[in-house]
Amino acid sequence: MLYLVPSPLSQKTPKQPLLEADLALVRQCNTWLVENAKPARAALGLFNMPVAIRDLQILEIAQLNPQQRHDVIQRCKAGDPIAVMSDAGCPGVADPGAEIVALAHRLECPVHPLVGPSSILLALMASGLNGQNFRFYGYPPLDPGQRDAWIKQSERESKTQQCTQIVIETPFRNEKLIDALLKQLSDSTLLCIGWDLTGDEQQIHTKTVGHWKKRVPSPGKSPCLFLWLSA
Amino acid sequence: MLYLVPSPLSQKTPKQPLLEADLALVRQCNTWLVENAKPARAALGLFNMPVAIRDLQILEIAQLNPQQRHDVIQRCKAGDPIAVMSDAGCPGVADPGAEIVALAHRLECPVHPLVGPSSILLALMASGLNGQNFRFYGYPPLDPGQRDAWIKQSERESKTQQCTQIVIETPFRNEKLIDALLKQLSDSTLLCIGWDLTGDEQQIHTKTVGHWKKRVPSPGKSPCLFLWLSA
Repeated sequence: MLYLVPSPLSQKTPKQPLLEADLALVRQCNTWLVENAKPARAALGLFNMPVAIRDLQILEIAQLNPQQRHDVIQRCKAGDPIAVMSDAGCPGVADPGAEIVALAHRLECPVHPLVGPSSILLALMASGLNGQNFRFYGYPPLDPGQRDAWIKQSERESKTQQCTQIVIETPFRNEKLIDALLKQLSDSTLLCIGWDLTGDEQQIHTKTVGHWKKRVPSPGKSPCLFLWLSA
Repeated sequence: MLYLVPSPLSQKTPKQPLLEADLALVRQCNTWLVENAKPARAALGLFNMPVAIRDLQILEIAQLNPQQRHDVIQRCKAGDPIAVMSDAGCPGVADPGAEIVALAHRLECPVHPLVGPSSILLALMASGLNGQNFRFYGYPPLDPGQRDAWIKQSERESKTQQCTQIVIETPFRNEKLIDALLKQLSDSTLLCIGWDLTGDEQQIHTKTVGHWKKRVPSPGKSPCLFLWLSA
């Protein structure tokens, strides 16, 4: 079985991210396919593994060539439980991991996703915006002109389809994106900003753009989620 | 604090759905705003509450009038910890709860989403499809003609935007939707079907539509997720 293992969202105050019942499953895994070895070791430190972490096989996915990927999935299919984990949150969702999972499906190796933290899902639950219809875009366009046009277009889509729009941004660009959102979106559009999810400084607030303009949020360099819905 | 509390996905084999550390938070809540009282009591039975379940205030959200909703959120804002829970999965995501959360934001009552199972997120992680760009639509259109046209349109969107398309369906219509997907989608499109997520009969498989046609899946009446991506 290929286990898809969520890892802590917050690096400052990492918390054990898995259900008690699922810890038994990850403790069976001696091979870990990860985004980066260092955060993987930090997460493994929270799982109370029966084997010393230095004795686990920790492989960075991006370093594996196609043959190595093929071999590890075949080994998994043959009965060796193997885990996939990204640096923070759920592998394969706004994070690497999907290619390995896709290969598992092609080779008919069974996969088992574990419950754990996703900043996208937590922010959507807490936004009070439409959770019956939503779209996650990853990062907004880098070029300011394209980004602004994209924000306007996404607001129209949100209005006509009542579809909640969701993006993340690199923390050092949080302020620029907030500026752009407050300039491009209509005053009546609901904008949710959530930061440091699951961390000690977690804040999640939904206000109209008009309200935000009066008290501009300052998430600093915390990882941030942005969601909007035009009424 | 208004806690947003996930509940077990599987009704047949319900499992404690919360992180060990979060159980202390929900055990403080004596008032529960729920979708339906019966499944809420079943979920509460897994939380080892310090108070007998019959002594908790369990309020069905749909039964509360605007004044009652307002009063309960004001009480929460004043310091009484209150929980929101839906029948299965995460409140507010493909489930009721968002209106109460939206009211909490309007009244500036802080909200705190708890980590727990979401069939949408689990299926997306396990699909191996694009998790950097995805859209959840809720249920597909009911009318067969509209549904078929919508499937074709969504396949075009998935192709041009590399956006994973996600829907759920009422279990007794699973077979009809599978028929329609296998007819309307191109043979090369990747289709993931996941059922009984977190349950004892969990299955999640991604194959091309061409492959599915040779071995049509039979999820029976299990709750099912459908995801597709056109290469």
